[in-house]
Amino acid sequence: MVQYVGVENLVRLVRHVGIKTFLQELAGYIEDDFRRWPEFEKVSRIASHSSDGVIELMPTADSVLYGFKYVNGHPKNTREGLQTVTAFGVLSDVNTGYPLLLSEMTLLTALRTAATSAVAARHLARSDSRVMAIIGLGAQSEFQATAFQALLGITHLRVYDVDPDAARKFCANMNDSGLVIAVAGSSHEAVQGADIITTVTADKLKATILTDNMIGAGVHINAVGGDCPGKTELHADILSRGRVFVEFPEQTRIEGEIQQMPEDFPVTELWHVMTGEAPGRRTEQDITIFDSVGFATEDFSALRYLRDKVRDTDFQVEIDLVAEPKDPRDLFGLLTRY
Amino acid sequence: MVQYVGVENLVRLVRHVGIKTFLQELAGYIEDDFRRWPEFEKVSRIASHSSDGVIELMPTADSVLYGFKYVNGHPKNTREGLQTVTAFGVLSDVNTGYPLLLSEMTLLTALRTAATSAVAARHLARSDSRVMAIIGLGAQSEFQATAFQALLGITHLRVYDVDPDAARKFCANMNDSGLVIAVAGSSHEAVQGADIITTVTADKLKATILTDNMIGAGVHINAVGGDCPGKTELHADILSRGRVFVEFPEQTRIEGEIQQMPEDFPVTELWHVMTGEAPGRRTEQDITIFDSVGFATEDFSALRYLRDKVRDTDFQVEIDLVAEPKDPRDLFGLLTRY
Repeated sequence: MVQYVGVENLVRLVRHVGIKTFLQELAGYIEDDFRRWPEFEKVSRIASHSSDGVIELMPTADSVLYGFKYVNGHPKNTREGLQTVTAFGVLSDVNTGYPLLLSEMTLLTALRTAATSAVAARHLARSDSRVMAIIGLGAQSEFQATAFQALLGITHLRVYDVDPDAARKFCANMNDSGLVIAVAGSSHEAVQGADIITTVTADKLKATILTDNMIGAGVHINAVGGDCPGKTELHADILSRGRVFVEFPEQTRIEGEIQQMPEDFPVTELWHVMTGEAPGRRTEQDITIFDSVGFATEDFSALRYLRDKVRDTDFQVEIDLVAEPKDPRDLFGLLTRY
Repeated sequence: MVQYVGVENLVRLVRHVGIKTFLQELAGYIEDDFRRWPEFEKVSRIASHSSDGVIELMPTADSVLYGFKYVNGHPKNTREGLQTVTAFGVLSDVNTGYPLLLSEMTLLTALRTAATSAVAARHLARSDSRVMAIIGLGAQSEFQATAFQALLGITHLRVYDVDPDAARKFCANMNDSGLVIAVAGSSHEAVQGADIITTVTADKLKATILTDNMIGAGVHINAVGGDCPGKTELHADILSRGRVFVEFPEQTRIEGEIQQMPEDFPVTELWHVMTGEAPGRRTEQDITIFDSVGFATEDFSALRYLRDKVRDTDFQVEIDLVAEPKDPRDLFGLLTRY
């Protein structure tokens, strides 16, 4: 039997654990897996593009576990009352090939994306960072805010979205967070005085959310929204002026902000910073940029964390996804003797 | 909500429909999809190899539906009482990216593989074929026998496996089939007088199940077992002497019997035969070979058939694999207001 964690059980689990604790523990798994990066089989995601969106499979494996995520990206969905991004994932046993865990990953992806951003920022942002700007107040925004509060000690937010309704939704959700929130009238206004700038807009097109004159020395930019070909948020001048950190260069050069740059544009792999093989922030004046696109190992970490967390609990149920005849060669017998 | 068809419900469905009717209807979907081959997005499967086996993702899509299958292949599993191959699959809406159907596919793959073999043989075997040899009496063998009985009118089987227990299992399962079955003492003996020869052995290594001197004029060879790099069943001389038909050449040249042959070894694509763009069997003397490795469109056809079949029935249940917040931008709200 395969363990199944659906939306209702994941919500129950996050509420039971507490979202901040969940994000902190998840961040631990993500950082542990980044630190053993060479152990993973890594391929760029396998994308199926259509006129309105994309459906992707993101597999990875170490020597013990295999994981993959199914995820779509359909910006026009929002207009039809649907999610832009939905996802689910599976963790399997490399030794037998049997699936072990099936989980919803729409919520889990939002949690792992925010946790990954915070993990990166712990290595790249100034340690005295307290003010974060968030540009783009869609489905991912509250997760980012909560992760940076829980893992970085952010106390103040300056937020902006082109849609005032999105800002109202954000403020309502963050009302009891303890964060001091200022809603800005523009991106320019939002970034004033911010130690960290998180861009997390959703449109599938080249946008310029941040221009070079908006970025002061010492800022860390957490660029989350630019994550597929043709979708960027930062002006190229910012990338040239700052130092860019990436998850998996082969994928980021296609999907990330650096798709705007020459193929040999210098980047630093995040895992090299975590293992001490490359410097993260070097001075208080550095502009650091985490060009986040989301990589399969982060989903693997999230599924691995979830599996450990739900084992022997009622936050999972068993489903009969795998046929288990008594004699493995007698699959046909299932049809006559079930 | 996503429709879920687990093992128990698929078994109930096949028993309800009848396995022969199920195979006939499934074969119709498979042939329909082969006939519209150019409409599909086609990529070779994405494989993750380990020392003991492989885990693969097999995606495909037309303009309306996206499908993928997860499948493993671990020959050593049998010794541990586990299936060599397990699988599950998903069908999604290209327009929204939302998953529609999740199904077990261990049984369904066995059914679609047999149905595909029979579909190919309808175009390639002599129409008066009544005797089939089956070499290898593992998990797939009874499905092949049943499909060829239902779709080709095979009446007599000559079967062989190195393991006598496998032959006993096969005969017990086929006891009420109406097929006349002779258990042979060797592969050589099994193929005597056969119109069709099905090879479906399981070991992951280059084997020579059939040699050229075993093959008479007019025979159709349904080569099912050679399906991954390093795993073949036919001697190269047979391939040179006969005419070879394949699903997706890019994949078959890596995984099929023709991995033994030069890169430009001539093959005919099965869909070209179905649409009349290429000849199938030309004379009663032709040796035809279906070098089957299994392709993603066949799984797509099976999932499409299953979805049509279980709609508005109790052969499926709904599961909460996809988060569905009322306001799609308010994913976070699920955690506070579920």
